[in-house]
Amino acid sequence: MVTIDTDRFGDTFRRYSQIGRTDADGIHRLTLTETDREVRDLFVKDLTSLELDVRIDEIGNIFGRREGTDPDAAPVLIGSHLDSQPSGGRFDGQLGVLSALETLRTFEDAGIEHRRPIEIVNWTNEEGSRFNPALMGSGTFIGEFDLTETLQHTDSDGATVADALEQIGYRGDEPCEPREPYDSYLELHIEQGPKLEEADCSVGAVEGVFGMAWLETTIYGDADHAGPSPMHSRRDALVAASDIVSAVRRLSNRVAADVVTTVGELEVSPGSINVVPAEARLTIDVRSYDDDTVAELVGRVEREIKGACNRENVTYDLKEIWRIPHTEFSPRVSQTALRAAKTVEADHQAMVSGAGHDATYLNEITDAAMIFVPSVNGKTHNEAEYTEWEDAVAGAQTFAEATKQLASRPDNT
Amino acid sequence: MVTIDTDRFGDTFRRYSQIGRTDADGIHRLTLTETDREVRDLFVKDLTSLELDVRIDEIGNIFGRREGTDPDAAPVLIGSHLDSQPSGGRFDGQLGVLSALETLRTFEDAGIEHRRPIEIVNWTNEEGSRFNPALMGSGTFIGEFDLTETLQHTDSDGATVADALEQIGYRGDEPCEPREPYDSYLELHIEQGPKLEEADCSVGAVEGVFGMAWLETTIYGDADHAGPSPMHSRRDALVAASDIVSAVRRLSNRVAADVVTTVGELEVSPGSINVVPAEARLTIDVRSYDDDTVAELVGRVEREIKGACNRENVTYDLKEIWRIPHTEFSPRVSQTALRAAKTVEADHQAMVSGAGHDATYLNEITDAAMIFVPSVNGKTHNEAEYTEWEDAVAGAQTFAEATKQLASRPDNT
Repeated sequence: MVTIDTDRFGDTFRRYSQIGRTDADGIHRLTLTETDREVRDLFVKDLTSLELDVRIDEIGNIFGRREGTDPDAAPVLIGSHLDSQPSGGRFDGQLGVLSALETLRTFEDAGIEHRRPIEIVNWTNEEGSRFNPALMGSGTFIGEFDLTETLQHTDSDGATVADALEQIGYRGDEPCEPREPYDSYLELHIEQGPKLEEADCSVGAVEGVFGMAWLETTIYGDADHAGPSPMHSRRDALVAASDIVSAVRRLSNRVAADVVTTVGELEVSPGSINVVPAEARLTIDVRSYDDDTVAELVGRVEREIKGACNRENVTYDLKEIWRIPHTEFSPRVSQTALRAAKTVEADHQAMVSGAGHDATYLNEITDAAMIFVPSVNGKTHNEAEYTEWEDAVAGAQTFAEATKQLASRPDNT
Repeated sequence: MVTIDTDRFGDTFRRYSQIGRTDADGIHRLTLTETDREVRDLFVKDLTSLELDVRIDEIGNIFGRREGTDPDAAPVLIGSHLDSQPSGGRFDGQLGVLSALETLRTFEDAGIEHRRPIEIVNWTNEEGSRFNPALMGSGTFIGEFDLTETLQHTDSDGATVADALEQIGYRGDEPCEPREPYDSYLELHIEQGPKLEEADCSVGAVEGVFGMAWLETTIYGDADHAGPSPMHSRRDALVAASDIVSAVRRLSNRVAADVVTTVGELEVSPGSINVVPAEARLTIDVRSYDDDTVAELVGRVEREIKGACNRENVTYDLKEIWRIPHTEFSPRVSQTALRAAKTVEADHQAMVSGAGHDATYLNEITDAAMIFVPSVNGKTHNEAEYTEWEDAVAGAQTFAEATKQLASRPDNT
């Protein structure tokens, strides 16, 4: 069994957490900013200290390669992202990169040999807070996004991704694509939900990611004066919109137990205290691990929208913004993670993820899976995001053990 | 019976409607702007042509006085406002001022004598679109607002009311207060609702104005990630807010038939498609002619807010922003209007108003009432606002007749 250096892991985590640290112990480290440059410089320095072969690709993804005993074997890729949300926490992304770093340090210190090369990676712009789209580095790497086009995306100040990469010195020369087929990809991440905490587990072996649909509807009524307009003559866009919000909430457990539904945006116009709302725009997010369930639910939501708008005598537009099927991770890799948790005696369970990660894209070009550690109260994307340190250690321990097993695998299993 | 000159009335209405006219035949004539100056100049010119004694007071209210046969009799005050909403219609306010003007022109032409002096007035900033508060001119005139303070209110560009008055040359010297007790105040206005149209009436004699309450509540939940957060662990501020919107709509006909309830503002934060709303702020407008009904309904709404927030496990703040009791206009004046409608053979009914007007404030210092004419489809505050011209004429005819009767009244009736 591999045993990581928990003191070193903790020191490293605290050191990285200083970069872009906020007063409330969170991190403000938007992609390709000066604080991102600072954390990248530290990461490259740490990789260089391990005598890894460091490469930066055209979108700024940072790779470090530790050779295995068989130079012809397909490598194992491990890592996550170092960028954060505007007022993000210390664990989202960073914990995954540092678990991978601690894994390689442990292998180096303990002289652990492995057949396959291991590459560690920090993906550029996972969060999508400064530049669209999220998962930019991994998505471009696997060919989902066109490199030339992506480099021209701008932030709210008009700076392009290309400019920002040049600015911080991370526009690399390496082609942004796999150099060779990978054996597998493994990523540790915080859960960003409460399931592991509720199950009293330290480690989740992630077998897949929910499919999802995004809808947007705009409702059109009349902007009547709130005083002289009797109720019977009104066409109130917000009353219809509120009916839809309630229906979307109610439908979440009608079709299957795992469905989650969210209305995250609702805007009202003209938005005046004494004017009946003439227009309301709202978004609907529907997710389930089962794609048919998502489709069924989208159909039901559409019928509810129609019904609510008929009842209130208003009209509406409806469009589907985005639909992605569920991702099924590699059973081989997720089973390896599950076995590793058992080996290191971490309380564990298999699970699926409600949110996409870089691993979702990597799964398209190799055998991918993830290891989750609990988020206290399920909180994420804010400074209160927290993972108990013993859970973080159990996750990193599991990660190191699983990485060793993946990297030791012969080709014929 | 007084008979107005309908051609002249129509010509005048078209002439005034040119000032600030929009492409869609509406009016953009915000208070104390250049277009307001232009319409004021025309109004003053028209008053001067009638040889009226014109006064401008410190808040820019314009008065024109036609003497009666008894110089000691308390005068009758008639008028409305010439300012408009940003994209307002041609009828709101303007029709009342021009009905008063046509009344005085008719009296002059026909040599109609009346015992009491008659003053015509154009109130400054009825709409409240550029400067807060609405009903500024009449409210300051009757002492509801402090003059010095009101003159310092600013628009969105930081200009004060005092600056704007100076700019257009309408900061008058006359004290902004009644010089003497008035006998009565009569105002013609569009209904801004569908009741007269539904009743097939040209004229409404307005006996009072709804009482009302304004509430504001802010709901606090948790901003969870829309994917990994199962429904059972959420605290969704928008789900609770939507429950409240539905309850407010449903309660409107639970307590009394005349109640109107409106949620006009609803803002959601963070307002992101894949984030459970952490905060929702909404406003509630409750109106009825019966103050006890308003109080009862506010109590019910408060219980619904509590229930909705308990169900969704969220917290909330609730404040009452404003509460005003109903206004009962002078039965003497509204009965005069009703009799006048009968005299001129206009289809008419007695009614109450859902919205406040300058007449609401004037009622505090004299015997006030209003005459309403229908709004097609109840539309107002937009360019589609419309009143059939035969209804406008019937209203002006009723107004002239009622003004003559008020101005002829001896002191002891």
